[in-house]
Amino acid sequence: MLRRLRYLRDMPRFALKIEYDGGPFAGWQRQAQGQKSVQGAIETALSRLEPGPHTIAAAGRTDAGVHATGQVAHCDLTREWDIFRLSEALNHHLKPQPVAVVQIARVPDEFHARFSALERRYTFRLVQRRAPVTHDAGLVWQVQHALDAEAMRQGAAHLVGHHDFTTFRSSICQAKSPVKTLDEITLEDLPYPGGREYRFHLRARSFLHNQVRSIVGTLERVGAGGWQPEDVRSALEARARAACGPVCPPQGLYLTGVGYPHDPFKN
Amino acid sequence: MLRRLRYLRDMPRFALKIEYDGGPFAGWQRQAQGQKSVQGAIETALSRLEPGPHTIAAAGRTDAGVHATGQVAHCDLTREWDIFRLSEALNHHLKPQPVAVVQIARVPDEFHARFSALERRYTFRLVQRRAPVTHDAGLVWQVQHALDAEAMRQGAAHLVGHHDFTTFRSSICQAKSPVKTLDEITLEDLPYPGGREYRFHLRARSFLHNQVRSIVGTLERVGAGGWQPEDVRSALEARARAACGPVCPPQGLYLTGVGYPHDPFKN
Repeated sequence: MLRRLRYLRDMPRFALKIEYDGGPFAGWQRQAQGQKSVQGAIETALSRLEPGPHTIAAAGRTDAGVHATGQVAHCDLTREWDIFRLSEALNHHLKPQPVAVVQIARVPDEFHARFSALERRYTFRLVQRRAPVTHDAGLVWQVQHALDAEAMRQGAAHLVGHHDFTTFRSSICQAKSPVKTLDEITLEDLPYPGGREYRFHLRARSFLHNQVRSIVGTLERVGAGGWQPEDVRSALEARARAACGPVCPPQGLYLTGVGYPHDPFKN
Repeated sequence: MLRRLRYLRDMPRFALKIEYDGGPFAGWQRQAQGQKSVQGAIETALSRLEPGPHTIAAAGRTDAGVHATGQVAHCDLTREWDIFRLSEALNHHLKPQPVAVVQIARVPDEFHARFSALERRYTFRLVQRRAPVTHDAGLVWQVQHALDAEAMRQGAAHLVGHHDFTTFRSSICQAKSPVKTLDEITLEDLPYPGGREYRFHLRARSFLHNQVRSIVGTLERVGAGGWQPEDVRSALEARARAACGPVCPPQGLYLTGVGYPHDPFKN
């Protein structure tokens, strides 16, 4: 066992920045059997380069259908791979799955994609128009009714800061505490052909399970007029799952970036 | 015959603004049999509302795999449809195909989607990065090598204006004359995760068959360094199809808009 650990410590560690379309996957996390996962796809690609088994750790364990443009994971390999060749080889073996390694960095053994992370950034794309989306099918959450951006902003403002987010937490969430600090929630109101696109940007050290989708689902109710902006504060203060609005679907959600004390991907 | 014509003149005419993902289609134009076309999809949806056959005319007969965000077509119906209800009914019957009617306008009988058009606007999305694209698969043309935006701009500048575009015209093009006026070709150079995105915007009264893809394919060669910007002028002046660069693939091309003397969709 000790020998195995010493051996592991000698293995060079690499951080991977990963992009994926979550549509065909049961989520990030490797599944017991049968179902496809992003983690499983990457571990299988790694095993084509060096005999496994490989177990990679990621900053955000995204749910089924959730996308990423900036997921970060790390892996330990036996060889000192050239990072360009490693990217090329992994992307080759990941084809034709919609998963791509967009950047790789050689990192110190102390770097841990999940435990070293200081910040996670998510974006949620909500499109409002009558006609069904075509090019963005599976890439946004679409509603057909009008939304009030200013009301959604006012509702969102109640959530920024250090709070008990029990209301906005899945009942199966495994986090020790429901208390988190939401550092940012901003809303971009963009033109969209025949409608509008609302992009919610959320930033926190870490998120509870389903927290973003619970928040966006609730803010959508505010935008639609069913809730008043102040109702978001009441829901938060209730500290009860039942006080939450409907959890919105996963296909509008993107893990866009992860912050570390030293950005491993900065040149 | 006269009676039929009179009857047709009494039919209210509607202009449709149409968005589609060209991926699953053999192009805009209805095919003799078997192959799916966007025109066929819309005509079939119309026949669910009023007995057909329906024949609709469009401003741009896009090729297989080419997308649209602002295609315009017109149709004649027997009833004075409420335009909101007509949109809803058409989109209902178009599902689950990636075609959507994003706007409808009641237009005078003199309006013809193709012959009244004064301007067509196309955008071509070219993405440069090593890692395969995921969310944009089928929606952009991807190359892996670096491109020089300034060189592509210089090359493009030779094409603006009134020219004989024989070089940039498909051998099966049916236009009477190869002489066209290209009013605009501009290049946006945008950040893209792990790379760059180059968006070419082209505007003209009308385009020859394969003109945009012949131009972008040639400019990509300039961006890659295989051609000099001045070589674009020589190719144009050669007035010979053989002088053209490679025609680029269709999946980056979007018909984004059509201009008319009076915009039927304004308000």
